[in-house]
Amino acid sequence: MNELELLARLIPGLPTRSTVVVGAGDDCAVLDVGIPGRYLLFKTDAVVERVHFTLDVEPRRIGHKALARCLSDIAAMGGIATHALITIGLPNDFDSTVVEGIYEGINGLAARHDVAIAGGETTANPGHIFLSVSLLGEVEKERCVLRTGGKVGDALFVTGQLGGAMDGKHLDFEPRLVEARWLTEHFGIHAMIDISDGLARDLRHLMKASGVGAEVLATAVPLSRAARLRARAGVLDGIELPRDEAFKTALKCALTDGEDFELLFAIASRDAVPLLDGWKERFPDLPLSCVGKITAGPEVVIRDKQMVRPLLEDGYIHFA
Amino acid sequence: MNELELLARLIPGLPTRSTVVVGAGDDCAVLDVGIPGRYLLFKTDAVVERVHFTLDVEPRRIGHKALARCLSDIAAMGGIATHALITIGLPNDFDSTVVEGIYEGINGLAARHDVAIAGGETTANPGHIFLSVSLLGEVEKERCVLRTGGKVGDALFVTGQLGGAMDGKHLDFEPRLVEARWLTEHFGIHAMIDISDGLARDLRHLMKASGVGAEVLATAVPLSRAARLRARAGVLDGIELPRDEAFKTALKCALTDGEDFELLFAIASRDAVPLLDGWKERFPDLPLSCVGKITAGPEVVIRDKQMVRPLLEDGYIHFA
Repeated sequence: MNELELLARLIPGLPTRSTVVVGAGDDCAVLDVGIPGRYLLFKTDAVVERVHFTLDVEPRRIGHKALARCLSDIAAMGGIATHALITIGLPNDFDSTVVEGIYEGINGLAARHDVAIAGGETTANPGHIFLSVSLLGEVEKERCVLRTGGKVGDALFVTGQLGGAMDGKHLDFEPRLVEARWLTEHFGIHAMIDISDGLARDLRHLMKASGVGAEVLATAVPLSRAARLRARAGVLDGIELPRDEAFKTALKCALTDGEDFELLFAIASRDAVPLLDGWKERFPDLPLSCVGKITAGPEVVIRDKQMVRPLLEDGYIHFA
Repeated sequence: MNELELLARLIPGLPTRSTVVVGAGDDCAVLDVGIPGRYLLFKTDAVVERVHFTLDVEPRRIGHKALARCLSDIAAMGGIATHALITIGLPNDFDSTVVEGIYEGINGLAARHDVAIAGGETTANPGHIFLSVSLLGEVEKERCVLRTGGKVGDALFVTGQLGGAMDGKHLDFEPRLVEARWLTEHFGIHAMIDISDGLARDLRHLMKASGVGAEVLATAVPLSRAARLRARAGVLDGIELPRDEAFKTALKCALTDGEDFELLFAIASRDAVPLLDGWKERFPDLPLSCVGKITAGPEVVIRDKQMVRPLLEDGYIHFA
């Protein structure tokens, strides 16, 4: 049984409460705890040594990544992050300068987004570091964006550029909190998710939650410099590729690498032009790309110059 | 550098916010997020295989322990537990029935205390299970009990019996949520803590936070059956003891074993008799013991038939 199958078995048995607006299955839990006009957002996320990071990078970047991943989930709901607790499991022979470095990364990012680190704990963890962040946020009820609100005909947008994040960006990315707040202030965002597992997979999550399908335009997917460099080097999963496969390789990176932590969202197509105009003025240095549209579905497909094909979870794998 | 020294270095650098009423240093973080008349309580706690449990016990008890530890911290603030997220790190070869068993224990305890499990995550953790619970609760502002409110002359009370919890109770204890709510409904509780590190150590934490000292009466410390059995067996840390040392051995267990998860609290001495009367009626099966009183301090001492001695963190070690 893999992790997803296990979760599918566990989730139906979880005790709930009338205060749970959204439980497992969105970017954050959404709770109505009696704050007038607002929901509370609640999220945990862990990074583990030897799984999500190694100790050959600066500890500051590990701490940054751990908190940034959680902040990205708050952004995906249109929320403001407020308070975090840090749980850190340490091997017996832990190096205190590593832990201080991790906290330096956490504190710097937290201070920049006005997030209080309200405590936490250290515990023993044999063999390696386990770092879990528990985060609270809040959002005006009418500005809370779920995964479920996508509508047929909506335009699909992606912030930034995708692919190759494991070459460095995954340790340094800036969660799109400011951008998400601007979006929900000026537009009706129908559905949103942060791209952690790759566009192909997270688009599928978003469409499934909304009960719709999507068509992505291959040439519209914003390719990162890291994805292009990987493609130019002609290396994908250790296999050398001919030069004319470079675009397809870069596209596959953008669709499947994951850890981009950009926002993918759906908006009424009539808002697409005002959105692009307003965005360019407010965020001139950050690309915003319309990558496709929502269809009646349930298929998720990708269109290139030749044809329309299914967009599978592991990417654009069936090249002609 | 040990964990406590490390935390002492890290805590002053944590970013804060005007909404943080109490940050690191009490049983829970206390947050004023705008719920009329109430504070939000926020807590995380982790249990780790090979540190806090082994897989030779029923997985249900591991899940129970993980959530119960957090619930005990909410109880120590006089709060109601409301929503939890579960983070579970799993080795590659994890046994799904173990995970389902862990959730069975979590869900059963959560349902009994009306706590929603609002989601969580599974992640890879090489070699062993890492289980972290993130918990929210709430409390009426005037009923929130901190560690800082103890006053000279207060009586010190302990629920239940202490010592020997590692013989089994640490996996099955019932967090004192109902009892704590009853206490704050009927009495002014000045300061409270849950006993996780042993009475000697947690009393010192409570007194230090309140800026006072304490005198404990040795014969008043409630000794658990497990502590008495340990003492009768004449074994303490593998050293055989003469029979007349049995009481002192049991007392040392009660003072230092930890993992009791009983409540230790301070109350005005004039309330001591009404408290004991009301308690006996409401909780006839659970002992409540007055173990001593708060002094101007800062010394924390223990009085037996012969004399008054310092009560050290590692217990009543200087027997005459």
